[in-house]
Amino acid sequence: MDALAERALAGDPRSIARFISVIERGGTASSELMRQIYHRTGNAHTIGITGSPGAGKSTLVSRLIASYRESGKTVGVIAVDPSSPFTGGAVLGDRLRMQDHALDDGVFIRSMGSRGNLGGLSGATHEAALVLDACGYDVVLIETVGVGQSEVDVIKASDTVCLVLVPGAGDDVQVMKAGIMEIADVFVVNKSDRDGAEKVALDVKVMLDLIANRKWRPPVSLASARDGAGIDEITANIARHRDHLAETEEGRSRRLSKIKNEVEEILRRGVFSRIEKAWTFEQTDVLADIDRRATDPYTVASGLLGRVISPDS
Amino acid sequence: MDALAERALAGDPRSIARFISVIERGGTASSELMRQIYHRTGNAHTIGITGSPGAGKSTLVSRLIASYRESGKTVGVIAVDPSSPFTGGAVLGDRLRMQDHALDDGVFIRSMGSRGNLGGLSGATHEAALVLDACGYDVVLIETVGVGQSEVDVIKASDTVCLVLVPGAGDDVQVMKAGIMEIADVFVVNKSDRDGAEKVALDVKVMLDLIANRKWRPPVSLASARDGAGIDEITANIARHRDHLAETEEGRSRRLSKIKNEVEEILRRGVFSRIEKAWTFEQTDVLADIDRRATDPYTVASGLLGRVISPDS
Repeated sequence: MDALAERALAGDPRSIARFISVIERGGTASSELMRQIYHRTGNAHTIGITGSPGAGKSTLVSRLIASYRESGKTVGVIAVDPSSPFTGGAVLGDRLRMQDHALDDGVFIRSMGSRGNLGGLSGATHEAALVLDACGYDVVLIETVGVGQSEVDVIKASDTVCLVLVPGAGDDVQVMKAGIMEIADVFVVNKSDRDGAEKVALDVKVMLDLIANRKWRPPVSLASARDGAGIDEITANIARHRDHLAETEEGRSRRLSKIKNEVEEILRRGVFSRIEKAWTFEQTDVLADIDRRATDPYTVASGLLGRVISPDS
Repeated sequence: MDALAERALAGDPRSIARFISVIERGGTASSELMRQIYHRTGNAHTIGITGSPGAGKSTLVSRLIASYRESGKTVGVIAVDPSSPFTGGAVLGDRLRMQDHALDDGVFIRSMGSRGNLGGLSGATHEAALVLDACGYDVVLIETVGVGQSEVDVIKASDTVCLVLVPGAGDDVQVMKAGIMEIADVFVVNKSDRDGAEKVALDVKVMLDLIANRKWRPPVSLASARDGAGIDEITANIARHRDHLAETEEGRSRRLSKIKNEVEEILRRGVFSRIEKAWTFEQTDVLADIDRRATDPYTVASGLLGRVISPDS
């Protein structure tokens, strides 16, 4: 086994950080490291925390960390920033407040940007969560802004999805549109001291009534992450959902579907890197040909595919 | 040429609608139709209209349609709804107000959901815009909610990107995070009668000062789409941007990069369908093997890749 993987699995935070950096860069080095540690995964409870910007997710995450630490559990955190097509970088912003836990060696916090279009945001984030799982963190929190398809993909990789809502700001519409409502296992209405908090909770419950035949009825909690109110109820709900997964067929089918996504993501990356190689080589002339309509993207793509994909497959 | 493609190119609205439905379903039928009409594309001016939910985009689009119609131009509209992973459906909502133009046969309006993960939202939307272009619409408007990576991808396919902001609601943070700020060519601060509108316009201008070395300085207009105020200035700005593209190297490089994205999107789709075929066949047993950690996704994917990818590539 690679020395870096060994040191990371032994719990050395610096090696874990370097391991995740290798994953962010992607490529064969990343896949090889992941292959070596994969058998150690599957023990952590992975919790996705999502919601609109300004919903107070980071404050909630900070409270959850404190709560899990009090009960003796170690906690890994992945904070995901939507990618900017220009900077590609990670905006830390509010997440700095998580640094309350920076000196606690039972807590590991990592902020991640996107790996670009090839591997996708969800691939790298999910792998980073697997690394923290393999390295022995009992709870892995993934915090993301829940407003786009790639964020939905990130969050679907969690065992338990916690959706944070706030009163006002047309938040409901936005969250519903992104389709996160349907995949949330635990709801939190944060900033419960604000006007309209009870109304949001009620709206969510009404909407949940419309989603028929679910064996798990997602609980809805009012909370004020800033003051610490409601945190115990939330962790209890999350624990209850974990038990539900352990006791029902849903847990297994969710695990298998997660694994299916893992394999597909790796396949996608592998094929893309092959195609990029073939395509980079010839694209300048071809683009100009398409621009003057001497050929078209469909004919060009089909030719490239024919060369890269094995005819037997 | 396919009869459907012929009737669509001749301007029959029902055939255009059916053509776009074929595209939404994807697959080889879709690619073949697109291949047949591609040489007729490249004449429309494609304008992406984006901004947060509630920014008044649909009202603005309706005003723009009226304005272009007054100057004798035909207008095609694609209204994009973020996909729900569960319903996959399109939420019409506010867009019904566009039905003001439903009886005008110089206007074609189409609402689109997602084609799912395979083709992606951006692929189908961009192709639908190409269809309207090929079918002779002078202006093609693409309206989308600008909050996620896939929406950024949709909007990047436009010749001119118009970002609609409104005072309040922490809108600025959200839009900046999604990286849309950097790709907007024309800014509209809508609901200009509200407090803080001038401040938003000023903030945008300050931010634009920070983006150095741009040959096109994106103009910022105050507007009230509801009352029709500011619409003439917006259409003038859009026209000026079109001229800028026609007169500078930026126009050509933008066209080429759009074409590059087209080819890559088609390649992606082709690859996915090959992978799905290879993978569906054997996945049930393999997933269970991975679940009990008898193997891992990296080893499984690498075996599959070896069979899918041609050894010569």
